[in-house]
Amino acid sequence: MTESSYKYLYRIDSPADLRKLSQQELVGYCDELRRFIIEQLALNPGHLGSSLGVVELTAALHYVFDTPYDKLIWDVGHQAYAHKIITGRRDSFRMNRKLNGLSGFPKMEESAYDAFGGGHASTSISAALGIATAAALRGERRHAVAVIGDGALTGGLAFEGLNNAGAANTDLLVILNDNRMAIDPNVGALKEYLLSISTSKRYNAVKNRAWAHMERTPRLRRLIQKVGNALKQGFLQQSNLFESLRFRYFGPVDGHDVGQLTRVLQDLKEIKGPKLLHVLTVKGKGYSPAERDQKIWHAPGVFNPETGERATHGGNGDEPPLYQKVFGETILELARTNDRIVGITPAMPTGCGLNILMREMPERCFDVGIAEGHAVTFSAGLAAAGMVPFCNIYSSFMQRAYDNVIHDVALQGLNVVMCLDRAGLVGEDGATHQGAFDIAYMRSIPDITVAAPMDEVELRNLMYTASLGRGPFVIRYPRGAGVRSDWRQPFREIPVGRGRWLRDGTDVAVLSLGHVGNTVAEAVERASADGVSAAHIDLRFAKPLDATCLHEVGRRFGRIVVVEDGTVTGGVGSAVLEFMNAYGYRPQAELLGIPDRFIGQGTQEQLRRICGFDLEGIYRTIMKSKK
Amino acid sequence: MTESSYKYLYRIDSPADLRKLSQQELVGYCDELRRFIIEQLALNPGHLGSSLGVVELTAALHYVFDTPYDKLIWDVGHQAYAHKIITGRRDSFRMNRKLNGLSGFPKMEESAYDAFGGGHASTSISAALGIATAAALRGERRHAVAVIGDGALTGGLAFEGLNNAGAANTDLLVILNDNRMAIDPNVGALKEYLLSISTSKRYNAVKNRAWAHMERTPRLRRLIQKVGNALKQGFLQQSNLFESLRFRYFGPVDGHDVGQLTRVLQDLKEIKGPKLLHVLTVKGKGYSPAERDQKIWHAPGVFNPETGERATHGGNGDEPPLYQKVFGETILELARTNDRIVGITPAMPTGCGLNILMREMPERCFDVGIAEGHAVTFSAGLAAAGMVPFCNIYSSFMQRAYDNVIHDVALQGLNVVMCLDRAGLVGEDGATHQGAFDIAYMRSIPDITVAAPMDEVELRNLMYTASLGRGPFVIRYPRGAGVRSDWRQPFREIPVGRGRWLRDGTDVAVLSLGHVGNTVAEAVERASADGVSAAHIDLRFAKPLDATCLHEVGRRFGRIVVVEDGTVTGGVGSAVLEFMNAYGYRPQAELLGIPDRFIGQGTQEQLRRICGFDLEGIYRTIMKSKK
Repeated sequence: MTESSYKYLYRIDSPADLRKLSQQELVGYCDELRRFIIEQLALNPGHLGSSLGVVELTAALHYVFDTPYDKLIWDVGHQAYAHKIITGRRDSFRMNRKLNGLSGFPKMEESAYDAFGGGHASTSISAALGIATAAALRGERRHAVAVIGDGALTGGLAFEGLNNAGAANTDLLVILNDNRMAIDPNVGALKEYLLSISTSKRYNAVKNRAWAHMERTPRLRRLIQKVGNALKQGFLQQSNLFESLRFRYFGPVDGHDVGQLTRVLQDLKEIKGPKLLHVLTVKGKGYSPAERDQKIWHAPGVFNPETGERATHGGNGDEPPLYQKVFGETILELARTNDRIVGITPAMPTGCGLNILMREMPERCFDVGIAEGHAVTFSAGLAAAGMVPFCNIYSSFMQRAYDNVIHDVALQGLNVVMCLDRAGLVGEDGATHQGAFDIAYMRSIPDITVAAPMDEVELRNLMYTASLGRGPFVIRYPRGAGVRSDWRQPFREIPVGRGRWLRDGTDVAVLSLGHVGNTVAEAVERASADGVSAAHIDLRFAKPLDATCLHEVGRRFGRIVVVEDGTVTGGVGSAVLEFMNAYGYRPQAELLGIPDRFIGQGTQEQLRRICGFDLEGIYRTIMKSKK
Repeated sequence: MTESSYKYLYRIDSPADLRKLSQQELVGYCDELRRFIIEQLALNPGHLGSSLGVVELTAALHYVFDTPYDKLIWDVGHQAYAHKIITGRRDSFRMNRKLNGLSGFPKMEESAYDAFGGGHASTSISAALGIATAAALRGERRHAVAVIGDGALTGGLAFEGLNNAGAANTDLLVILNDNRMAIDPNVGALKEYLLSISTSKRYNAVKNRAWAHMERTPRLRRLIQKVGNALKQGFLQQSNLFESLRFRYFGPVDGHDVGQLTRVLQDLKEIKGPKLLHVLTVKGKGYSPAERDQKIWHAPGVFNPETGERATHGGNGDEPPLYQKVFGETILELARTNDRIVGITPAMPTGCGLNILMREMPERCFDVGIAEGHAVTFSAGLAAAGMVPFCNIYSSFMQRAYDNVIHDVALQGLNVVMCLDRAGLVGEDGATHQGAFDIAYMRSIPDITVAAPMDEVELRNLMYTASLGRGPFVIRYPRGAGVRSDWRQPFREIPVGRGRWLRDGTDVAVLSLGHVGNTVAEAVERASADGVSAAHIDLRFAKPLDATCLHEVGRRFGRIVVVEDGTVTGGVGSAVLEFMNAYGYRPQAELLGIPDRFIGQGTQEQLRRICGFDLEGIYRTIMKSKK
């Protein structure tokens, strides 16, 4: 589509421009914004569904509030595409999620309109309260608005924020963007509750009584008139969940009626204290394929905007499968023969592959919602009662359950298998989502096993080994495809703390952990052809280390290279240094991995190159051993 | 007091014995149990207030439920003294919190009655749900009961547990032990809410209407009759916070009427699904000094049970003060001259010393409740709006905010000062509370400063330096007293990443981080008298390391010793190894600190000896350099 097919879109370079539109023009602008997002994402993949759901809400917020002086904080920033486009990033949007392009999430250093970054869920209320509190302390009349999805509201952090904000009595507006989905359909008691207050006849029945007791403020009265039939009992007494937490509750309102939204927001601006506006939106709104299958269209990849046809991925036939599929198929296989095995996921059944188990054994699969801490402690409870839970959490999200791993799992020596999906560089999701730190933060915990498979068969065997009850057991593996098409092998137990000596050599020993071993194998092969004889050891375990193997390396090699898809600072390379030092070996060691800085978005291959552990980088490091 | 002064206490060796008592005898037993706890804690300090508050509740639970087959899960286990005494640990209770004695918290390996350990707050609902779910999967008719204080309920994890349990519809009983206190008085909207449902006339007014709609179950009807006047509107419709989350709400009941408690619990046993019993208790119940000043008597130290006189601590006059007092006085001083400084604590204003600022500048001090994640993200919001928040969190509790540090603070380069109190070995609180991991888990985060003062003046100067806006800044310091009486020195800025070369030597270089430097100085002195010339460097920063200093160490010394009050695995010693390796130095290094296992309770001095970094251990390590 060309610029000329748009009447408004290319005239709006900032929220200031937006505010010059009439209400009717605003409606037209929103339609174009939606079309633009669809066209862009058809070519350049991203989070489609959430973005389409908040087109009108985003426009209304910028129309009513004086951004960037007023502060908009987006929770789980993949809602924020419309926000980016409105705030001067329409033309750079083609570089969304690309190397040196825009971040897929709000990012403070990218724009003054991005008041607070956010790739992980449930942070917005806390951050907005901080911003609102600062404004109050300085006597500034600055508005702070948090926009949080109903999925993110299940995260305990959001509740902590509500509880504190409700008591603080600071001016703060929380917009609950209720579309009944996280990525998968939303779960938990809260979901049912939100549905009930949106539909219950009982609530509507008390409307008339409520009117009678209504507060005297004319503004409040006017607002209530606008919200109309949707007025809820909770409005006047502490009988609503949010009112219980001393928020004033308004809504629900139709999140796709931009006229109503602007009018309601205008009034809410004048009401003091903590308040919550419940907005009902439809994920994928305005694009019928996305409305029909909201899971798939959360992040659909490349597609044809006319037909809704999606470019298909590999993974069938002879191509290596995604690690996620291997995890899902394997836990199902294990669960069939071991009735103590159960699966737990915090809101990522589709993303992590647990939906495969869920389909066949729904009673043994638990989607606990966005609640990583609970996922781990709930797993610990299951293990304390004799089950063998496989708790699957993305590496960067496991940072949220760190204390639960230490205090509830490791300290009690419980048989919880923690599968860290998307460990290492994840690619387009960028800095907030890189699974960079898990090796470092896990390996300092006592009595825990930390493993990383080099391929799909290894993943299966590690899962099998962990299922035998080997205490707290971490298995980390990357986002994306593996390397083998013959991955369905019979299970074999792996001795805990035993690596694999894959190839012998004389000039240098290359120790790798996890999937990077495949690149190392290639690099070693190439180096061999070029005159450097390198040994290659797949460490397999970051903890416990393979002492036998490392003693041999220490005795035989004056130079070693350690390669990991994780932070070098404190990572497995550091563990190898600790070992070598403890036993008096003095090799010269080179540590390859994620350097000590935050790594932004790009393809996984681009990012590995930048970090220096792509094929070329590893090869060059090995070749330094050339005599 | 002697055994003979007790009629019941020494006859009860297990819950089975307890169940043989009549209701009236049970009342007598509770009185004796309370007296026993007071007498024991007068001599052997511990958590008095919480324990006295739950005497009747604990007895009633063991009287009604078939423990240990039924599972009792205590949240923040310092409520669990009565539980320990009832469950066979009466005589070993004199060794509570002592080396090789009982843990001050429930601990699975200590007793079959300790169904799940717990030193940190808010974990019980998640764990109990796991245990209940396992029972359901196996078709066992086992009850799972979580006892959670109102303070712990503000933690997001508890909410995540409620939200999941409410939807899961598993048989689970949550007992809300509402005493309106964490350690300091409880805060947050939830506190107000609980108060309102305990007292509101409005709720009582609907009682009659509620009766009419009441569910048909005769058991329910009987229960309601017993709960009597306290029946709440929430009981019959989703208008109560807990009912919103699909829990059945019962109460509030008097937590000191053991007869009523046993009758209500007996009925609740028969009711399916998730249910919550709201129990009102008084912290310090039955001991009037403790009832009067609940903060002080949370953990009063040694006292005279007759007079209520407490043994006084040092800290006045010429004795070195507690680090906590230095923190409190210093932030007040800083805040007086810099109006951007604010203080944040998750429910520990008294424990961490922030109450000193709170008294003088309440508007610039924020007790956010037990909510560590929120404390950090809220601080990040404040910093994003230009403030300089000092967020004070105990080291082991900061594990709960790890993602917030990474995602909200470090990634955005915000000026948040994170003061980690009780870093290193804490002593009597034991394994759950040791601040062992912070150096390791913090130093792998990019763009963050990690510092540890060797004494009080250094603490003050580090706080001053951080207050100038030096990006994400961690300052860790121990529980307990410092070493200087002349600590009130004028502020001096410390160059970030610069250590101190305290003493030169030739045989070995000893690098220390934080307060252990004082012991190192003594050991170095002694070694010098015994013929070993040791240099001593106070690293002061675990990140960034002092490169200039380390280059000199690397060039000049063939042997180094690194000492830290933190885990050796991945700690600052490991960072020094990384540095030495990166620049081609090959010293033989010995790393002293907390070894790679969980360390239980004892005095700080005992634990340091066990870990090998007490004076003797350090001295001996230095002396290995004797030619």
